[in-house]
Amino acid sequence: MSKPLILVSNDDGITAKGIRTLVDIMKRIGDVVVVAPDGPQSGMGHAITVGETLRLEETTIFDGVRAFECSGTPADCVKIARHFVLKGESRQPDIVVSGINHGSNTSISVLYSGTMSAAIEGAIEGTPAIGFSLCDYSHNADFSHVEPYVESITRQVLARGLPKGVALNVNFPPKRHENIKGIRICRQSNAKWVEDFDQRFDPNGRRYFWMAGNFVNFDKGEDNDEWAIANNYVSVVPVQFDLTAHEAIARLNEEWDILGES
Amino acid sequence: MSKPLILVSNDDGITAKGIRTLVDIMKRIGDVVVVAPDGPQSGMGHAITVGETLRLEETTIFDGVRAFECSGTPADCVKIARHFVLKGESRQPDIVVSGINHGSNTSISVLYSGTMSAAIEGAIEGTPAIGFSLCDYSHNADFSHVEPYVESITRQVLARGLPKGVALNVNFPPKRHENIKGIRICRQSNAKWVEDFDQRFDPNGRRYFWMAGNFVNFDKGEDNDEWAIANNYVSVVPVQFDLTAHEAIARLNEEWDILGES
Repeated sequence: MSKPLILVSNDDGITAKGIRTLVDIMKRIGDVVVVAPDGPQSGMGHAITVGETLRLEETTIFDGVRAFECSGTPADCVKIARHFVLKGESRQPDIVVSGINHGSNTSISVLYSGTMSAAIEGAIEGTPAIGFSLCDYSHNADFSHVEPYVESITRQVLARGLPKGVALNVNFPPKRHENIKGIRICRQSNAKWVEDFDQRFDPNGRRYFWMAGNFVNFDKGEDNDEWAIANNYVSVVPVQFDLTAHEAIARLNEEWDILGES
Repeated sequence: MSKPLILVSNDDGITAKGIRTLVDIMKRIGDVVVVAPDGPQSGMGHAITVGETLRLEETTIFDGVRAFECSGTPADCVKIARHFVLKGESRQPDIVVSGINHGSNTSISVLYSGTMSAAIEGAIEGTPAIGFSLCDYSHNADFSHVEPYVESITRQVLARGLPKGVALNVNFPPKRHENIKGIRICRQSNAKWVEDFDQRFDPNGRRYFWMAGNFVNFDKGEDNDEWAIANNYVSVVPVQFDLTAHEAIARLNEEWDILGES
């Protein structure tokens, strides 16, 4: 029985502690190929590199693992893995895993998340895919409490597959005194960022800004990812790349009076 | 009766012909504020600028219109418009319009689209929002045939609003001999890009890549955006930012046997 082939990427860059943790866990499960950004790509959303060139270099930073660092975005990494690194090879990835991100990708942050863009790119290719994020932004975050969950969720997805067109957005609570309580299948909570632009002046007197923001949660439910994290559960949100608001189609067809002008 | 306040952005950059066309149309409808990238941002998806600074400068390139160019992404532009440029002012935008993009944003391209990220950012803020794209990538594309549609769709959305959490992804066929046949409310078609990485070597002998790709359409339906464009209709896809695959939640809750470990 052959081992699964696991493609690993992230958005914090190939030297981050989170991807090193993820690679170590995946080595227990299957054969691993890493294609990850050569530097931080946080907040890149589903960006791809259009109109600019890409670099790709093989690296030996992971012992015994075939690994490449790429100048592009997380979505670029998954594309170049499939259509260059593994092109023409007999095996294609059985699963794409991304992360473990240093920081939360719950709620609306899924849109801005490079971690999730790598996973969604896997799903677009028809491969089961998971983005893992730890709700702790620190560079040296403690991932020890999430390792068993990363392994069991990955094994579950390898065993059972995922619905067509769906990737998983998995978030973990930060290390707390009490143990994680378990896993909850969730919906994306209704929340948003309210930005604050910090205006400063450079040494030449020219204005620049830092974007900062506060996360505001409007959601009073208990079936969502923010609730799960706040209550020390692992949140698993199935995410789709068909963005159509199907229910709105009927409403627009009913209401609009500019549809008959053909 | 006061005129609506219209926020305009795009992803081709503030000097593109498409945004100039859009500003000219919007001036007929309301008061216009432009905040757009200072250079091309195509393919940026829903990227935001995290960990780097932003620039914002007022510009006079649109006669009689308050306009700003920003070093950030389309999503950054909408955020800085709301939370800096218009902060504390008595009027906030009644609608956000983005484009007109030089090139298609149908089907899966909605994920990679900076044009749509500006519109979706508007929807997250609770403002009706539309991304307009012309299926013609040329720098000097002919927008004349789409102007009446841009105006009528914008007026329709101002008059009737949009469902909560929904923005519109509007694509126009390129200028053809026959007239546009009308408007179709569509779903996102089932298609993807198959990438091809063109490997080259720089003058120092170091390898680099250009990402190229072919668009492959798997969709045989007639209710989708690709069909509409091919058949010379304007496609209007209602797009949501709740990415939850709600139907998958029940399936995962049924199937997974690692959920009871609390």
